[in-house]
Amino acid sequence: MDVMKDFEISVYGLGVMGSSLAKNLISKGFRTALFGKSQEERERFHAQGEFTVFSSEEEMIKSLKRPRVIFMMVTAGSVVDCVIDGFVPFLDEGDILIDGGNSHFKDTQRRCHTLLEKGIQFLGVGVSGGEKGALMGPSMMVGGSEKAWKSCGHILEKMAAKMGEEYCCSYLGKEGAGHYVKMVHNGIEYALIQLIADIYSVMKKGLCLSRQEITEIFTRWKGTELNSYLIDITAGVLAKNDIDGKPLVEKILDVAQQKGTGSWTLEEAIARGVYVPTICEAVFARYFSVDQQLRKDGSQVLKATTKPMILENYEEKLKDALYLGMIVSYAQGVALIKKASEDCGWEIDLPLAVSLWREGCIIRSELLKDITKALKESDKNILLSQSFGNLGRREEALREISAKTIEAGVAAPTFLSVISYYDSCRTEKMNVNIVQALRDCFGAHTYERTDVKGSFHTLWMEGEK
Amino acid sequence: MDVMKDFEISVYGLGVMGSSLAKNLISKGFRTALFGKSQEERERFHAQGEFTVFSSEEEMIKSLKRPRVIFMMVTAGSVVDCVIDGFVPFLDEGDILIDGGNSHFKDTQRRCHTLLEKGIQFLGVGVSGGEKGALMGPSMMVGGSEKAWKSCGHILEKMAAKMGEEYCCSYLGKEGAGHYVKMVHNGIEYALIQLIADIYSVMKKGLCLSRQEITEIFTRWKGTELNSYLIDITAGVLAKNDIDGKPLVEKILDVAQQKGTGSWTLEEAIARGVYVPTICEAVFARYFSVDQQLRKDGSQVLKATTKPMILENYEEKLKDALYLGMIVSYAQGVALIKKASEDCGWEIDLPLAVSLWREGCIIRSELLKDITKALKESDKNILLSQSFGNLGRREEALREISAKTIEAGVAAPTFLSVISYYDSCRTEKMNVNIVQALRDCFGAHTYERTDVKGSFHTLWMEGEK
Repeated sequence: MDVMKDFEISVYGLGVMGSSLAKNLISKGFRTALFGKSQEERERFHAQGEFTVFSSEEEMIKSLKRPRVIFMMVTAGSVVDCVIDGFVPFLDEGDILIDGGNSHFKDTQRRCHTLLEKGIQFLGVGVSGGEKGALMGPSMMVGGSEKAWKSCGHILEKMAAKMGEEYCCSYLGKEGAGHYVKMVHNGIEYALIQLIADIYSVMKKGLCLSRQEITEIFTRWKGTELNSYLIDITAGVLAKNDIDGKPLVEKILDVAQQKGTGSWTLEEAIARGVYVPTICEAVFARYFSVDQQLRKDGSQVLKATTKPMILENYEEKLKDALYLGMIVSYAQGVALIKKASEDCGWEIDLPLAVSLWREGCIIRSELLKDITKALKESDKNILLSQSFGNLGRREEALREISAKTIEAGVAAPTFLSVISYYDSCRTEKMNVNIVQALRDCFGAHTYERTDVKGSFHTLWMEGEK
Repeated sequence: MDVMKDFEISVYGLGVMGSSLAKNLISKGFRTALFGKSQEERERFHAQGEFTVFSSEEEMIKSLKRPRVIFMMVTAGSVVDCVIDGFVPFLDEGDILIDGGNSHFKDTQRRCHTLLEKGIQFLGVGVSGGEKGALMGPSMMVGGSEKAWKSCGHILEKMAAKMGEEYCCSYLGKEGAGHYVKMVHNGIEYALIQLIADIYSVMKKGLCLSRQEITEIFTRWKGTELNSYLIDITAGVLAKNDIDGKPLVEKILDVAQQKGTGSWTLEEAIARGVYVPTICEAVFARYFSVDQQLRKDGSQVLKATTKPMILENYEEKLKDALYLGMIVSYAQGVALIKKASEDCGWEIDLPLAVSLWREGCIIRSELLKDITKALKESDKNILLSQSFGNLGRREEALREISAKTIEAGVAAPTFLSVISYYDSCRTEKMNVNIVQALRDCFGAHTYERTDVKGSFHTLWMEGEK
């Protein structure tokens, strides 16, 4: 084989995402070395441009100019370590390994450190946008070696989606910062999707709208402040008929699948003490869906005294409530990133991180422009920003819909979580003084006071010694 | 020192809990060897009965008859491993080590296995009831070596609280089964406490009741089906005045503390996919309380269009809603224990586990008799049981209060989580078919159908290839 030399970058792994990213690179004019582990993978790969598909890791590495840049797109987990171990003997000081999979940020952190000891620069890159994003330009959240970013960041930027003249790709911080932001992106994605599903329930079961009416509403929303990829595809998904002409969504089993990133987001929220109730309800909705028998039994046994849902001007109110729900979902995610960045010393530029989601990724939305603006003005919780126009009208709609949803007996847990979050943020004085008093009463755990510093213990019960 | 021999049991660690347990053992007539690490601890210990306080681990161990039984009551974590390592050289095959601290069940599992390799039998015992419980009779949830339980269980039983003729102490399963059940006990405790705090908010901020009126309501509830330790102490805590004659609870800072067990419960719920929204809101309420600045800012910035709360016959309705909230909290905890028991092969007897909570522990309540009964009839989710009398009336009250709380702008997240849980259990067909369709649309994740088996993928959008 007459092997071209001086390839600028290589892509390891030619699965759905890997081959799309490779085609993306080649189409942007980068001379690209590829590695496919099976003959089938290698033969399936077609593109227009300068590239070679290798069947030997060593040959692929030797074909690269220095510092070598290798973009790995393999399944997250132990496979990544195996692949890295295979590369290391052939790499030289200053070479760059990039992990574009959905790796856990703690794995990325570990790999950064162990590879740096060997003189190898590591980048953990969160890539969002699915197959089409990978091909046309994904959103890319980069973390790890800043030196590596300076050396090869221009290549990653050119792969990425663009919002106007800005690349939806940037370096966010050392170690696992990029994969962390991607993880939270996915947590927000869970929340937005479940909000859409819950508002669908409100429309269908609460307001008794037809599939046709619901589809038309989502279609009209595409042209409003709700404008976003997820609203867009919801309109498309609802419109889709099965071969018998009936709505396809109605034939889909109501048992949801998930990969790990939603649960990882919750684990992180717990570890860092960040309140993310909407992400929580969204992740648990998928878990809960698995137990069909419980729900079947429950629908027989559990009574409900309900009222029909009457909601004047419902299309506008539903839009307002959903809009506020989206803001609150982003607010929870951003608060988590902020806390992790502080805890880990990543110094993530929050408006920059959020701005990377404006194009290319699943949660891209019109709203993210305002959120980026809000975060540039202040790093306070974005729900408190004045950047969103009339939040008051939206709050009113959310409150009315939440209350009426309960009265109608329609389960819409994400909406209740949004109003809980909103009202919790409004509560200057919380009721946990009662919690503190009870804990001190039964466990002598002590409490703090509003008027004097220190820890106090009281004998609360009469006759107590 | 003239050392008595043939002690039946020893207690290692004479802190608040350890010395109370030791006094408990001595008062029940067990000849007890004690170890206190500081002179102060040793001198502080007083009791009536047959005991010796040792300052040498070796001497303490030598004073015990065989098989030796050592009850450790030290801070959970690495300290437990240190103490165990100190004991091992002096122990013989068949000797029994008991860990009565709040250890993580995974640590208990590990210790069971490593000690068994050395011929030592290990028990992990969840002890609930605080200082008074430890002294008068706690609730004790035992896991680990069944052989050890058969050998020394009669001692533990006599230490424990009693419900009628039944001991609130039993062997629940191998490895970490006992500590697991204790962890979930604490998770339920979080939920019940926060439900009480939230209903206090509803009474105070929603219904504008005075402290006097609220205290009287809780006091009256002591004689109803809400009868429980936590309702009892809430009445006491609310009645307590500071030295200036003003309510003491009002002077307590609204920033809550916590130990790890609430978060552990959530981590487990996520790992096993069990929906526990009320425990979740309760744990996060404490986290959220820490950010006082956010709430101060939020109370200024976030508007709310609210209605005054009008609730006829409120005392009865609040009681009904709280009662249902309690059932749902126990239901979530029991569902988690059930899942963990299945996953880990512990074969926990659910009615037995729950019956241990009827006396001695923080979450003891009248309701647990009915829950035990319900679980004896069926291992289905206890919310679906017919054992609780008129659940319909309670559901009606919960629904009305939840809706009106939202309208009044009073944050009561645990109540909203309860209605979410209730209505989710009633939902035969969930909306996650929409979730599945969207995931397949953007990520080609495939979906299942209601009419045909298999995995399907659809090109959802017009013109899609």
